[in-house]
Amino acid sequence: MFETAEIGRSIDKATFEAEEPALREALLEAQYELKQQARFPVIVLINGIEGAGKGETVKLLNEWMDPRLIQVSTFDIQTDEELARPPAWRYWRQLPPKGRMGVFFGNWYSQMLQGRVHGKFKDAVLDQAIDGAERLERMLCDEGALIFKFWFHLSKKHMKARLEALKDDPLHSWRISPLDWQQSKTYDKFVRYGERVLRRTSRDYAPWYVVEGVDHYYRSLTVGRILLEGLQAALANPQRTRLQPHAAPLVSSLDNRGLLASLDMTQALSKDEYKEQLTTEQARLSGLMRDKRMRKHALIAAFEGNDAAGKGGAIRRVTGALDPRQYRIVPVAAPTEEERAQPYLWRFWRHIPARGKFTIFDRSWYGRVLVERVEGFCSQADWLRAYGEINDFEEELTNAGVILVKFWLAIDQQTQLKRFKEREQIPFKRFKITEEDWRNREKWDDYVDAVGDMVDRTSTEIAPWTLIEANDKRFARVKVLRTINEAIEAAFAKD
Amino acid sequence: MFETAEIGRSIDKATFEAEEPALREALLEAQYELKQQARFPVIVLINGIEGAGKGETVKLLNEWMDPRLIQVSTFDIQTDEELARPPAWRYWRQLPPKGRMGVFFGNWYSQMLQGRVHGKFKDAVLDQAIDGAERLERMLCDEGALIFKFWFHLSKKHMKARLEALKDDPLHSWRISPLDWQQSKTYDKFVRYGERVLRRTSRDYAPWYVVEGVDHYYRSLTVGRILLEGLQAALANPQRTRLQPHAAPLVSSLDNRGLLASLDMTQALSKDEYKEQLTTEQARLSGLMRDKRMRKHALIAAFEGNDAAGKGGAIRRVTGALDPRQYRIVPVAAPTEEERAQPYLWRFWRHIPARGKFTIFDRSWYGRVLVERVEGFCSQADWLRAYGEINDFEEELTNAGVILVKFWLAIDQQTQLKRFKEREQIPFKRFKITEEDWRNREKWDDYVDAVGDMVDRTSTEIAPWTLIEANDKRFARVKVLRTINEAIEAAFAKD
Repeated sequence: MFETAEIGRSIDKATFEAEEPALREALLEAQYELKQQARFPVIVLINGIEGAGKGETVKLLNEWMDPRLIQVSTFDIQTDEELARPPAWRYWRQLPPKGRMGVFFGNWYSQMLQGRVHGKFKDAVLDQAIDGAERLERMLCDEGALIFKFWFHLSKKHMKARLEALKDDPLHSWRISPLDWQQSKTYDKFVRYGERVLRRTSRDYAPWYVVEGVDHYYRSLTVGRILLEGLQAALANPQRTRLQPHAAPLVSSLDNRGLLASLDMTQALSKDEYKEQLTTEQARLSGLMRDKRMRKHALIAAFEGNDAAGKGGAIRRVTGALDPRQYRIVPVAAPTEEERAQPYLWRFWRHIPARGKFTIFDRSWYGRVLVERVEGFCSQADWLRAYGEINDFEEELTNAGVILVKFWLAIDQQTQLKRFKEREQIPFKRFKITEEDWRNREKWDDYVDAVGDMVDRTSTEIAPWTLIEANDKRFARVKVLRTINEAIEAAFAKD
Repeated sequence: MFETAEIGRSIDKATFEAEEPALREALLEAQYELKQQARFPVIVLINGIEGAGKGETVKLLNEWMDPRLIQVSTFDIQTDEELARPPAWRYWRQLPPKGRMGVFFGNWYSQMLQGRVHGKFKDAVLDQAIDGAERLERMLCDEGALIFKFWFHLSKKHMKARLEALKDDPLHSWRISPLDWQQSKTYDKFVRYGERVLRRTSRDYAPWYVVEGVDHYYRSLTVGRILLEGLQAALANPQRTRLQPHAAPLVSSLDNRGLLASLDMTQALSKDEYKEQLTTEQARLSGLMRDKRMRKHALIAAFEGNDAAGKGGAIRRVTGALDPRQYRIVPVAAPTEEERAQPYLWRFWRHIPARGKFTIFDRSWYGRVLVERVEGFCSQADWLRAYGEINDFEEELTNAGVILVKFWLAIDQQTQLKRFKEREQIPFKRFKITEEDWRNREKWDDYVDAVGDMVDRTSTEIAPWTLIEANDKRFARVKVLRTINEAIEAAFAKD
């Protein structure tokens, strides 16, 4: 894989200087066009051998292009806010918005390669990391991102010569590499694992470009041309290629009997049962949240349900058990302008709690396969793709110790009608009922289908859905609390 | 100041229960109205004696009101990202947007009182902190925020009894207070300095409410009523009171001779001089940014200037000296939706660099007194107020070790015309010239006035303006670099 990048490729200064002005001008043009179109972001990953010109090339790109439209991020050191969250959080918070370019040093590939070279884990774990990178990039590309992955390469001999030459270069030496490149073994391992990583992550939608780094002119011109061609092609393509969803899209179940129809909606609690059980479950939650073992976990509860199913009331019974400093509630409405300039899941990633904390999503990332699907706010390809993306997202959370509970609060049509009418009567509840609620009601059957598909495709062992029979509010609230408590206890038991 | 809050005020349970439902309903109504209007945010500061019911009251407010519209923040522990920035940064990042309520525990008052009680500083420093709090709150109120400041009080006798009672309450004991309240002296000091703080920060626009905390019913009902009345009054007032600006607004200088007219615009560098000086200054900047002493500072450069004055080119010569991982460029354009829901300076605070880093603002917070003033995008009261707010902002930055340089790149009208025409000719520069640029040109004299006033009012010892004679691009670029270098060296010399 690296053979052709170890042959000492070079071009002469005259050729470089002849080509540079036109290349520069074209790159600038493409960059402004990117900004004007603001249809997609560009992500440039910088990896490879120490001394192969990574930093120098990015510096040159910033000189060639307009640096005001480029964000360079480096991920060598994690802050404590980052350490308290799933590993991907730090990449999400640095994603460039549509129309901009983000350059990522020390990215996910650097992290996995360093870990493997240092012997912190074996190939199986490396492969998991590779798999995670692939999913992330695939998702970003599906969302429209244009990804360039550059591997700057050097033969061992050339690397040694470069490191010697760079020793006294202040621009180089102020940075301390996390790997000891003076050791011959480091190079060998890095190249071996690098080969594995590149082989498995070079995909049509985000290929690797291996660039021999020994000659400044060759390296710079190569990178510049690749960027330019990729940018121009993407800018010229009005609808960036989107992979076709599976030929047979989801259909409602053939017997027209849904999961929701199988719920026993008559379940209820008497006032006394409710009082007693609520107190018990609230005390239990309060204790669990203060448990020392909670410091290794974060808690996320996602609430979905029919309009007027009692999400708000259930959430209040959950928070009623807690100190307000422990939790935050995120009401999910239409995305803001900054959120629309990012991949779909960005607006949820930004609210992921730190360890020890609890975030409640009042409506959630399932909006895409519920309201957006039913109302046609996104394309079929988008929501069909979302099931897989959401499963990946939830796996990232749970892998990092997040305890995730997901509720669908279900009521029947009759109960909903009764509650809508009540809301119109009671002054301080009239804010809770809008024209939209009445319109949604007409799409009841569409929602039944959407919920059925959602549960089929995203109720997983790591993040199961809990359907809450919510005709009786008391029953629903206690079941919600109990489910959360059981999830926390199950997580503690596995620690 | 606290006498009337040490007399054991209480109300009976029956009175409380009779009033609670109506109060709760009215609070909810007000909260939804706040959300609908989305005209201003509500900030609730929670301070006072340990055990006086701070946490319990906020918990109750979350039960009474809709917790989805309340963000509770606690500032007891600083993260390393916060420690690397000016102290106010952590408050800015938690400000509630318009239409929402933010509850701040462990806020600026807690920080200053703890510091003083612990003897970390004397009264003079406490007074500086008080002054800073006043400026911050005044600015927030001028921007429309509704601030409630609650001081929960207890007599020493009552406090001791409460702490004894709370000892076994798990909801209380899981939090470790930063002060040792078991000591009698702690109470005395806290009350003494608290009195000083309250006396000096109780203002008509953000008064303190001292609430005796010994009785749950009294305390809860008092806080609830204050919140309700304040909210209702603010919601009913369509144009929240804005203080009148000074009766005599700024006028252009009487002799119609501006600062800009006094610049020697003929200054220029030959190609050779430029090459030599540019190389020297770039090497100097590169060295200074890598200097160990830079770890105690952050660097901010704000670029303003006439259209086509060469801001972009100057910025590129600055960044040309640096590794792209050291700096970030923030191009300032129209505020986003999330930025419009916050006070004016919020969108600049979010980009304040951590220590050791460098942020370049391509246009800046001076937009308010330049384009917004000239184009009438904000009211006269807004931009007149901005001078003072900006001086406060810059003082907060420099107090925290930020090195701040501000450039106005000035060209004359003839030079601008020449450059506009050039831009229209050169393909990769055509993005840089718009209809708006031509329109701005017609307002040349208005901008001359605005720049004159801006420099008069915001060129300060801690953050002076540097006017750059930019008819000659070479001269301008070298002067920019040299100014930055001198500012860094001056800061190092003072360390």
